[in-house]
Amino acid sequence: MYIGRVSGTVVATIKDEAFRGRKLLLVDHLDLDEQPTGAYDICVDTVQAGVGDRVLVLDEGNGARQVLRLAEAPIRAVIVGIVDELDKQ
Amino acid sequence: MYIGRVSGTVVATIKDEAFRGRKLLLVDHLDLDEQPTGAYDICVDTVQAGVGDRVLVLDEGNGARQVLRLAEAPIRAVIVGIVDELDKQ
Amino acid sequence: MYIGRVSGTVVATIKDEAFRGRKLLLVDHLDLDEQPTGAYDICVDTVQAGVGDRVLVLDEGNGARQVLRLAEAPIRAVIVGIVDELDKQ
Amino acid sequence: MYIGRVSGTVVATIKDEAFRGRKLLLVDHLDLDEQPTGAYDICVDTVQAGVGDRVLVLDEGNGARQVLRLAEAPIRAVIVGIVDELDKQ
Amino acid sequence: MYIGRVSGTVVATIKDEAFRGRKLLLVDHLDLDEQPTGAYDICVDTVQAGVGDRVLVLDEGNGARQVLRLAEAPIRAVIVGIVDELDKQ
Repeated sequence: MYIGRVSGTVVATIKDEAFRGRKLLLVDHLDLDEQPTGAYDICVDTVQAGVGDRVLVLDEGNGARQVLRLAEAPIRAVIVGIVDELDKQ
Repeated sequence: MYIGRVSGTVVATIKDEAFRGRKLLLVDHLDLDEQPTGAYDICVDTVQAGVGDRVLVLDEGNGARQVLRLAEAPIRAVIVGIVDELDKQ
Repeated sequence: MYIGRVSGTVVATIKDEAFRGRKLLLVDHLDLDEQPTGAYDICVDTVQAGVGDRVLVLDEGNGARQVLRLAEAPIRAVIVGIVDELDKQ
Repeated sequence: MYIGRVSGTVVATIKDEAFRGRKLLLVDHLDLDEQPTGAYDICVDTVQAGVGDRVLVLDEGNGARQVLRLAEAPIRAVIVGIVDELDKQ
Repeated sequence: MYIGRVSGTVVATIKDEAFRGRKLLLVDHLDLDEQPTGAYDICVDTVQAGVGDRVLVLDEGNGARQVLRLAEAPIRAVIVGIVDELDKQ
């Protein structure tokens, strides 16, 4: 998992039923100084995250399907939490 | 998932049945400014995408097989949608 | 697997039950000279690792779920051991 | 999947039965200008590819096992096709 | 799979039973000129490889578990062979 920041939204025409009603968010991958690395993922949201939120992203398909309780969703990256505190020493 | 742009087509001699009748597209991986990153994938199309289209790419094998409703396709990257709007803030 | 060093902790609001009571640690990916590479993972701890510890990280979802004895945890990276000795020749 | 070019062969002492009689090929990962990127994979061949051939490589374990019709082969990258035409626009 | 060179050993305190009695080796990822790329993996050995040996590494969890005949090992990278000959053209 990595720390990301929600930086936008995506609207797409997708036929697969698993995406119906799901919000797709652009998430910038942050480094440990909380700066964008240039990498990103288009994520499915599970925690009502909004633009600007610092989030925890799971980037693995089998786990992503499990969070969504969908055995067959064609989904790879999911926002699983909102980061409240990041304590780097 | 990432945002890509279809930049061409591939014709290949493939023995595996799962590819029969499938269109293979070259897709450039875009960054969030919609510029090519230099990375690409050869993707199976599921949404009738054409060259120049901005698409949503799923790059994970188990999910890709699920989109295609094929339990055993040797496929890893699939175009799952056409991007209508990308709102980066 | 790779060698990492625990560099901090993360507190997050996560709805998924699999994270209940789990400690999330920031782990810097080390190179073989034991210097940070700039990459990191947010890992679930299984060995009571603390900040500063040199650890062995498994970064693969199916294996991570197996270490945790959870068939469905949405987890990808897990600290599986404390490194006692690293003998590079 | 990516486009590669077969650049050599590997002979190795491997105990696992799944490799018996399989040809292992060195494959350079090509960019879309068909230049080597510096990355490579050791691939199992399924299409009688030879040195110099431009090939389509599937780099995902579950799919690779399916191409080979082996439920348990410890194999990750497989040459699935010979590229006949690459039309980049 | 990639070509690596065994460059050392790791001793770690690991609770998971799957690691009992397994030797963990540091393996440098080699490029096709047989120079280290700077990347590495901590691998489980299956072929009695020693420091300095040029080896074939499988870096995929499901395949790694299959080589070890363990349905549930939390293992991702495994040395599957000793490279006898690398013929690059």
